[in-house]
Amino acid sequence: MKQSQMYIPTLKQTPSDAEAVSHQLMLRAGYIRQVSAGAYAFLPLAWNVVRKIEDTMRTEMENIDAVEMRMPSILPADLWKESGRYETYGDNLFKLKDRHDREFVLGPTHEETFTSIVKEDLNSYKKLPIVLYQMQAKYRDEDRPRYGLLRGREFYMKDAYSFTANKEQLDVVFNQMESAYRNIFDAFDLNYRIIIGDAGPMGGTDSKEFSAIADIGEDTIAYSDESEYSANLEMAASKIKQLPAEEHQPMKIVDTPDVHTIEALSQFLDVDPAKIMKAVAVMADDQPVLVMIRGDYQVNDVKLKNLLKADFLVEATPEEVADVFKSVPGFISPMNMSDKIKVVYDSSLEGLDNFVLGTNQADKHYVNANFEDLQKDPVKFNDVRVVKEGEQSPDGKGTINFTRGIEIGHIFKLGTKFSKDLGANFLDENGKSQPIIMGSYGIGISRLLSAIIEQHNDENGIVWPANLAPFQIHVVPIKYKDDTQKKLSDEVVQLLKDQGYDVLLDDRNERPGVKFADSDLIGIPIRITVGKKAADSIVELKLRKTGETIEVNKDELVNSVKILLKNQ
Amino acid sequence: MKQSQMYIPTLKQTPSDAEAVSHQLMLRAGYIRQVSAGAYAFLPLAWNVVRKIEDTMRTEMENIDAVEMRMPSILPADLWKESGRYETYGDNLFKLKDRHDREFVLGPTHEETFTSIVKEDLNSYKKLPIVLYQMQAKYRDEDRPRYGLLRGREFYMKDAYSFTANKEQLDVVFNQMESAYRNIFDAFDLNYRIIIGDAGPMGGTDSKEFSAIADIGEDTIAYSDESEYSANLEMAASKIKQLPAEEHQPMKIVDTPDVHTIEALSQFLDVDPAKIMKAVAVMADDQPVLVMIRGDYQVNDVKLKNLLKADFLVEATPEEVADVFKSVPGFISPMNMSDKIKVVYDSSLEGLDNFVLGTNQADKHYVNANFEDLQKDPVKFNDVRVVKEGEQSPDGKGTINFTRGIEIGHIFKLGTKFSKDLGANFLDENGKSQPIIMGSYGIGISRLLSAIIEQHNDENGIVWPANLAPFQIHVVPIKYKDDTQKKLSDEVVQLLKDQGYDVLLDDRNERPGVKFADSDLIGIPIRITVGKKAADSIVELKLRKTGETIEVNKDELVNSVKILLKNQ
Repeated sequence: MKQSQMYIPTLKQTPSDAEAVSHQLMLRAGYIRQVSAGAYAFLPLAWNVVRKIEDTMRTEMENIDAVEMRMPSILPADLWKESGRYETYGDNLFKLKDRHDREFVLGPTHEETFTSIVKEDLNSYKKLPIVLYQMQAKYRDEDRPRYGLLRGREFYMKDAYSFTANKEQLDVVFNQMESAYRNIFDAFDLNYRIIIGDAGPMGGTDSKEFSAIADIGEDTIAYSDESEYSANLEMAASKIKQLPAEEHQPMKIVDTPDVHTIEALSQFLDVDPAKIMKAVAVMADDQPVLVMIRGDYQVNDVKLKNLLKADFLVEATPEEVADVFKSVPGFISPMNMSDKIKVVYDSSLEGLDNFVLGTNQADKHYVNANFEDLQKDPVKFNDVRVVKEGEQSPDGKGTINFTRGIEIGHIFKLGTKFSKDLGANFLDENGKSQPIIMGSYGIGISRLLSAIIEQHNDENGIVWPANLAPFQIHVVPIKYKDDTQKKLSDEVVQLLKDQGYDVLLDDRNERPGVKFADSDLIGIPIRITVGKKAADSIVELKLRKTGETIEVNKDELVNSVKILLKNQ
Repeated sequence: MKQSQMYIPTLKQTPSDAEAVSHQLMLRAGYIRQVSAGAYAFLPLAWNVVRKIEDTMRTEMENIDAVEMRMPSILPADLWKESGRYETYGDNLFKLKDRHDREFVLGPTHEETFTSIVKEDLNSYKKLPIVLYQMQAKYRDEDRPRYGLLRGREFYMKDAYSFTANKEQLDVVFNQMESAYRNIFDAFDLNYRIIIGDAGPMGGTDSKEFSAIADIGEDTIAYSDESEYSANLEMAASKIKQLPAEEHQPMKIVDTPDVHTIEALSQFLDVDPAKIMKAVAVMADDQPVLVMIRGDYQVNDVKLKNLLKADFLVEATPEEVADVFKSVPGFISPMNMSDKIKVVYDSSLEGLDNFVLGTNQADKHYVNANFEDLQKDPVKFNDVRVVKEGEQSPDGKGTINFTRGIEIGHIFKLGTKFSKDLGANFLDENGKSQPIIMGSYGIGISRLLSAIIEQHNDENGIVWPANLAPFQIHVVPIKYKDDTQKKLSDEVVQLLKDQGYDVLLDDRNERPGVKFADSDLIGIPIRITVGKKAADSIVELKLRKTGETIEVNKDELVNSVKILLKNQ
């Protein structure tokens, strides 16, 4: 391909409105242009990379007998109402009406569509399992699209859906998909972690998330420095040190005038916050819940929602504290709390002795409280806290560190949620009707471009892994108008094309400095410079990654390129 | 690929709501399912075919240095307002608003988007020509989607756009694109005609349409039985026989009480309708126009609109005839008509003598009227009539026949319409700013499936051309559970896969009759039946197209398949 025909509008300046390095580089190197907020034109270079990503995915999907097809993007709103997601997605759904006033949404994901299509045919265990996938533009009306392709409103996804007759079949597909995803991300030379994800609006029970390590990532990942353990901060667990056991003292009430916060209480009573039992009053789907946690920890909303199986969670208002909890903000306590209020104890409290506790009366706290003062039965503890760096990994190996990550893939065991909502049933071996057991599996294709570039760049531009680069080889004549250089350049291009390489030829009438800078910027692994030694059939090979150069005769070129590309 | 994993939900019954053969067959053979009116799921077989179509297009586009990229589908409504097409497309545009109430459309075509993106960079003649294309879902809110993929609301298109510095460059690209399109349609074994299309809302001046011959086609094509001449009925021309010349008689007025139609007038006066000059009063963008045409012809609205360069054309109401034309419906005449009314004479009137003509008075007509009675200057004739079958082809070769066609491709010389509307200018060799000269070129990918199946089917199902079939070879064991048959089937599949063929293996536990019927229905070119002679390594090859069968030993199989597929 000749560069003059390829449409690669590189920029000399870094666009001022791009924060993320990958966003800056994709704009500067002529990969993308914004059409509207969160919707981008993929210019020829970027589209080449997308197609290579797709090809890798196809190979891996074929290996596990997943079959490609394609759903439409305009979907009847009724389907989404049947599953309840029309409401839970809320403003994130693009909604539209046709000329006959029928309601549609633009698909952000396709669980409902696949379920509704296959249910007519997958009516017997004999037809299962089936695994289908597609690669397609997806739509999400993000409140704040940003970082270029990282958080877009129109983006590309590979989404797969499995339909199985039992949990064993689902486990097989789930594990196959996980290993296919590992192969894909390994092929793209990505540094990533597999973490226990939050199933979120999918409503599933078991999921894994693939997260590429990057400073620009929007998720915080907690991982062990000595084991495979990784989790989103929202879901991360840890082992914490209990305080030394103490002999229980008699509980008594003390005055704590106008002391409303843990910090103030700790100072006023001169006790460690870890010795205070903090109370957090919340409304979970309109049910009052009191969460007790050690004073030096924060409540994790996601863990709490999952524990309570709640859709919505908000802190109780002062009015609710007074009217529903019959208490006083800052002094809330499980002591003598009505049976109608559910009380949750975080596991940070386990083994705590002689702690400070609210009294449900203004300006008064208990000191030297103990669990036997609260209830006769043993207390049941649950993990609802936000972990901290430096705590012990829950598998006992190493300590917890935080890093930031970009979600690049997600696999879910959906179970029967969608098949039940949409009535997708099959007859099992005993002739009994059962809901199909489903899984869903996604990779963000356009987001992958961002993640890969975040991890593969230097001060001069992008540094593509060889198998994803829009071209593998960049032939750059110093002066293409020079007959000798032109002749050798054209010969070199043909030689390499005949070997199956993707080759870009810089046929532009630009200064060598401009050509070299553009070549580094767009990040092609091997540059072949054709200059003064063209008369002797000698060219210079330069590796984008290391900057190393060697001179090679035309006759040795193919061999040299083969060896160099292998080591990229 | 194993058929049990491929998801091919064939149907025994023809769906009652499908009229077109291609629609029926795609439903029955498990290629597509409707998700909503005009929006289909492309199941694995159909998607395989789409991908082969796309690959053929890629090869042809690469040959003419067109470069693939990808635009978003959600487009800012403002872009469409700038070009004026927000209004002209009207209800055919899907419109939506995002959460911040900004207006968008779903792209049915992308002239505006490409122009607005490239204009920042293509600022010099040195950077031209550039030809870009994409293959993508497109959206059109059709009033009546029908015939399956033929007229959908979400459909796939290959659309290309050229940006050139002058008309010569445009002509080169236009001709290259035409020949690429011929190659593509020839490769798909299509019977098609290239016709002079109506540029329509593209606003272009020069276009060609590729139309596949099919009874179900929505367009009527007029073509010569002895030459290359083809045109949409809306644009078709012809040569018509003039009536014999007569000596001019003196014009006089006769009473024609209550005679309002050509038919009635012809009977009342006992004259050939061809001797009557018919008047049609229209409002063209609110301007009154009087169209005169021979009584035995109809006015062609498209030709008239193009002649008048009008956007909207409606017949004048009786009130307008009275108030604006100062005449009486049924008796309208150019005689003594106000200068403010434009009069158009159709070329069917050329050489007409002693004709009947209105008087602008009720119940009175002129007889023996002649052009010199109307005006002193020679009359200028224009072609604004609908041609009829049996007339002479306009190139003088053969006579005009009608057939029906499906529009599968369209190429347009857009000129500077969009570059002027959107301010896309470049500096020419003299440093002068000029609007970029554009072309646009489209192929309906999903519609191609319909067109090809309309032309390639028999009573048993689809009969794919070998290079487009979702699989080239269908291996059908009579009984896959039989060890010998299974072993040979698996060997045969592997042998053929190693040769690069796409092979489908029917591993289902179904009766042979069901398997054979499904195989014919989905239309794979070669079926290989593995049956009782498996023990002797002998299989049966059957050609889908002709029904011919031959028995072949495993060792000769690859050679036989190679020869047979070449001849498909």
